[in-house]
Amino acid sequence: MKIYDFAMAPNPRRLRIFVAEKGLKIPSEQVDLMTGRNRTPEFLAKNPAGGLPVLELDDGSYLAESVAICRYLEALYPEPNLMGRELREQAVIEMWQRRIELGLFGLVSRAFQNTNPLFAGRIAQFKDYGAAQLAAAHQQLQWLDGQLGDRPFIAADRFTIADITALVAIEFGMQVAGLKLDPALANLGRWYQAVSTRPSAKA
Amino acid sequence: MKIYDFAMAPNPRRLRIFVAEKGLKIPSEQVDLMTGRNRTPEFLAKNPAGGLPVLELDDGSYLAESVAICRYLEALYPEPNLMGRELREQAVIEMWQRRIELGLFGLVSRAFQNTNPLFAGRIAQFKDYGAAQLAAAHQQLQWLDGQLGDRPFIAADRFTIADITALVAIEFGMQVAGLKLDPALANLGRWYQAVSTRPSAKA
Repeated sequence: MKIYDFAMAPNPRRLRIFVAEKGLKIPSEQVDLMTGRNRTPEFLAKNPAGGLPVLELDDGSYLAESVAICRYLEALYPEPNLMGRELREQAVIEMWQRRIELGLFGLVSRAFQNTNPLFAGRIAQFKDYGAAQLAAAHQQLQWLDGQLGDRPFIAADRFTIADITALVAIEFGMQVAGLKLDPALANLGRWYQAVSTRPSAKA
Repeated sequence: MKIYDFAMAPNPRRLRIFVAEKGLKIPSEQVDLMTGRNRTPEFLAKNPAGGLPVLELDDGSYLAESVAICRYLEALYPEPNLMGRELREQAVIEMWQRRIELGLFGLVSRAFQNTNPLFAGRIAQFKDYGAAQLAAAHQQLQWLDGQLGDRPFIAADRFTIADITALVAIEFGMQVAGLKLDPALANLGRWYQAVSTRPSAKA
């Protein structure tokens, strides 16, 4: 297997952390999104949607979409478990993974795309919309803090893919979209301290 | 089991079609999103994210998020299969489901929220952004037409959850966001004719 990766981008990082937590070593190749290498005919033959990460399988076929790749690896390498053991737990973890991805992760990504100078002149930016998305992301953090309460992790009594999505969304938001982790959000602060210092967070 | 549903909303419709394809009969209760019934303490105790659909299980617990609910039902009632039989097929179907959901479905939803008069004065609308999302949705339809080629369905040689997400996105977009299915997109037109006339599409 081989992973097509881009160090700066959040979706590839989700997969890198997942792979690190599994203790797997999968060779990777960088595909520079900023210079449009993901829009070349050669790359579009691997993933016609143009996104990263992509997993190349040993039969020469390709699989795209971070969570689809993670679930595929989870089935091949079930432990340490990151997506649930029995059915009910799997469903709750998927529910939380989706809440974070469609909520916080999406908000931060759209704030980034619509406000970051990196995109100025490259795509149409709607700055007021981007600012509103950032404000909504801050509201999501507050909501998540309340949901977390004194639980150690987001979706189970152990680290799961929902924590990966949240960690990547928050750190990406802080790096490129002006997201701030309010110290008053004590539950989230405790969670962030725990997950951001795991060895896999270096991935 | 019981489903909390809202007839007009696209995510509940995804689940209704899924349930109809499985041949299941699950009682449901309407929760009016337009009057904020999903923001009452009573409903937030069922789904603190406030979204629909929600599945109430026989033990009195709740499961939210359309795709998490679908995957749960798929495990309980594997046939007719809608999310893949063996691992590789499951991964490809999830890849396509995500491409459509994070692409077309998200674009149409944001076009709706930012342009439809239904929301005027209720939420901050960014009309130019909404118009750009609609234009991007039309580009996605063109891309999807090319990807579909002469294949009968989006992700497999049979109807799957990826087709459900695409059907709901397209019809919701046509109803509320000004989406148009260009007759020049012949592959997509053929696919749409087939999936929109299945009995489940009435759900």
